[in-house]
Amino acid sequence: MGNKLTNDDFKLALNEIGERAVIASRKLAIMSSQEKDDCLEAMAEAILREKDYILRENQRDLENGVANGMSQAMLDRLRLNEARVAAMAEGLRQVARLEDPVGITLSNTVRPNGLEIKKVSVPIGVIAIIYEARPNVTVDAAALCLKSGNAVILRGGSESIHSNLALAHCLTRACIDAGIEEAVVQVLPWTDRRAVQVMLKMDAYIDLVIPRGGESLIRAVMEESTIPVIKHYKGVCNIFVDKSCDQEMAVKLIENAKCQRPGVCNAAETLLIHKDIAAVFAPKIAAALLARQVELRGDDAFRSFAPQAIPATEDDWGEEYLALVLAVRVVDDLDAAIAHINRYGSKHSDLIISDLPESVAKFMAQVDSSTVYVNASTRFTDGYEFGMGAEIGISTDKLHARGPMGPKELTIYKYQVYGNGQIRT
Amino acid sequence: MGNKLTNDDFKLALNEIGERAVIASRKLAIMSSQEKDDCLEAMAEAILREKDYILRENQRDLENGVANGMSQAMLDRLRLNEARVAAMAEGLRQVARLEDPVGITLSNTVRPNGLEIKKVSVPIGVIAIIYEARPNVTVDAAALCLKSGNAVILRGGSESIHSNLALAHCLTRACIDAGIEEAVVQVLPWTDRRAVQVMLKMDAYIDLVIPRGGESLIRAVMEESTIPVIKHYKGVCNIFVDKSCDQEMAVKLIENAKCQRPGVCNAAETLLIHKDIAAVFAPKIAAALLARQVELRGDDAFRSFAPQAIPATEDDWGEEYLALVLAVRVVDDLDAAIAHINRYGSKHSDLIISDLPESVAKFMAQVDSSTVYVNASTRFTDGYEFGMGAEIGISTDKLHARGPMGPKELTIYKYQVYGNGQIRT
Repeated sequence: MGNKLTNDDFKLALNEIGERAVIASRKLAIMSSQEKDDCLEAMAEAILREKDYILRENQRDLENGVANGMSQAMLDRLRLNEARVAAMAEGLRQVARLEDPVGITLSNTVRPNGLEIKKVSVPIGVIAIIYEARPNVTVDAAALCLKSGNAVILRGGSESIHSNLALAHCLTRACIDAGIEEAVVQVLPWTDRRAVQVMLKMDAYIDLVIPRGGESLIRAVMEESTIPVIKHYKGVCNIFVDKSCDQEMAVKLIENAKCQRPGVCNAAETLLIHKDIAAVFAPKIAAALLARQVELRGDDAFRSFAPQAIPATEDDWGEEYLALVLAVRVVDDLDAAIAHINRYGSKHSDLIISDLPESVAKFMAQVDSSTVYVNASTRFTDGYEFGMGAEIGISTDKLHARGPMGPKELTIYKYQVYGNGQIRT
Repeated sequence: MGNKLTNDDFKLALNEIGERAVIASRKLAIMSSQEKDDCLEAMAEAILREKDYILRENQRDLENGVANGMSQAMLDRLRLNEARVAAMAEGLRQVARLEDPVGITLSNTVRPNGLEIKKVSVPIGVIAIIYEARPNVTVDAAALCLKSGNAVILRGGSESIHSNLALAHCLTRACIDAGIEEAVVQVLPWTDRRAVQVMLKMDAYIDLVIPRGGESLIRAVMEESTIPVIKHYKGVCNIFVDKSCDQEMAVKLIENAKCQRPGVCNAAETLLIHKDIAAVFAPKIAAALLARQVELRGDDAFRSFAPQAIPATEDDWGEEYLALVLAVRVVDDLDAAIAHINRYGSKHSDLIISDLPESVAKFMAQVDSSTVYVNASTRFTDGYEFGMGAEIGISTDKLHARGPMGPKELTIYKYQVYGNGQIRT
């Protein structure tokens, strides 16, 4: 939709959306926790009330998907049903129950001249979310932004446009009913790519862009955006099995990290085995993973112990398979493992399996990733599992926020300085 | 310098600098506080020891400056002398005495499944600083980056290249003497603009760019960089005088904020006066400021009370004069003042002078700036004045850090997750 509009039409329309978002964000920033939570509750009710309408619009997307030859996996991600609509409403209520991250005094100091300097958490302002496929992101992102006092502009994929607009209709309707500026949540009605291109230059209105989806989507956003972006490109998660560890536990952790849900960013993609235990451990893990239909791609050393593995190439070390495939390498020592991870990994989630405290300490300090694990599956990198309640995404960046991002990560701070006539001399 | 190099030469040379910085940053990240502080002390000693050499090289820059018709103000900023060299050494020692911002446990939670999730402060990695004129930035930036465990690549202006390289020589020499990777501090030896252009695309090596200087420099960095940037474009600081306040104090605060050092970013540029007190206060403040040679540019309402003011145009409201000029406007009420500031200000430092608690509360909450003041001069927005010890710059951005940025603002965090076999089910 939108393909009959000119570039200037898009600019005009999007600037208006941006202005409305800024105005809404200023009102949101000073809204009480109760008002925000009441609005989230009203949104949950609106979604339940309008479920037939939502499912009908979702059906249109599904029919278009079938007509366009969409894969079964994609159709499944796109599909809503009563249970999924109920889960979205429950998600809104869960976010309502979280602590308000805004207005928290982070520090408070009194200077020798009597100035009181308070550092207080505030919303970021206007956030744009660009995402694909799953309509539940529309609701999750709106909920987290509202909770953290940010206005949000949502741009979902063309494949879910009818579902997203129907959900947006319920959300804004709830805002109106709750007496809240409806522009706190806006869904772009256009699927034309030019709309995104225009939006990504709107740094005068939008403070932050969070893209969620495949690496190509995220790279395109990065190239075009003049607005700061928080993101992860991919999750190339590594597991290092140290020379001394509980090997039975290692097998369980590797199986879980690789097989429990191979299509997600915190699934393991590469296994590094310390050479001192390779002769014993390599055949063991190979047997366990082959029994679970995992394709193994190994270096020569690994293949000498596990000949069922096919040869790995240099490209395998940086590959996010998102499937039942695992690259395996035998490394000389801990330093080699750390060097491998820092070179080929994606700074997402990396694991050491070890019972040597000095190895653990070194790995935890030197692996430069958002989340480093010892003796636990990488699959826990997730807002719910970390106890944040919900997440708007996972960051592998080095600024603002790393790892799972919850409501708190959608805030920044301001300094409030209280004086009684202090001047600088 | 560097103008005989091809673009490919720059790429090769800069990639090598980038790689060395990454390697150095990994070593820095795990260095003890004592090692870092010893290195800062060694740097201070090296600068004092080599002061004749530094002053000689500075003299070359000054002579070039004179030959190129540099203004007296610029020459003064560029000039080093014994006292300024001693101040740089003392600055290094002050940074050494600050608390180490790295390795601090920001939170620690144990999940129901027994996973222990620690959030620990870590350095950002590699930081590039792009700056103009003042050679002391070379030393300050190096000190703050070292303290916070970050490798730094410095690119000063061509006007101070000899001073900067001499200082860099002392700093890296101190690193070598202290047994520390010398690439923790690297100064680009080229003044050719293409070197910066190449550097700003090196997102594979550099995690953050901090530009310091005029708005045109910062806009150029923003346009070319594929690396995240923290910055402020300018400081259009506003003062609002409420309908009820200590008018004598108001005059003192306005004089200080405008006149104490007009060329800096936290000096006031616009004054907003509540219409209820304009008839009394406008003539008073006009007289005080005119006596201090401040040029006043007022709207019609202000000029009706202070006819000495020249007419302000729309452009004046967003102007950073950096001089003894003040734009003055009479506003209907607090809401109009807040709306003016959020529209025309630069999100830097804004002040309300008032004795009405409800006005103060509203202003502090709704003005969307990094630092909001009540009854104190805007001139305090500064790392030292805020008690941070030093600052690497001031941010008006909405991500990562706002206001004065000290060593702590040059860190991020990682999650360290400790388990004993937890898998996700």
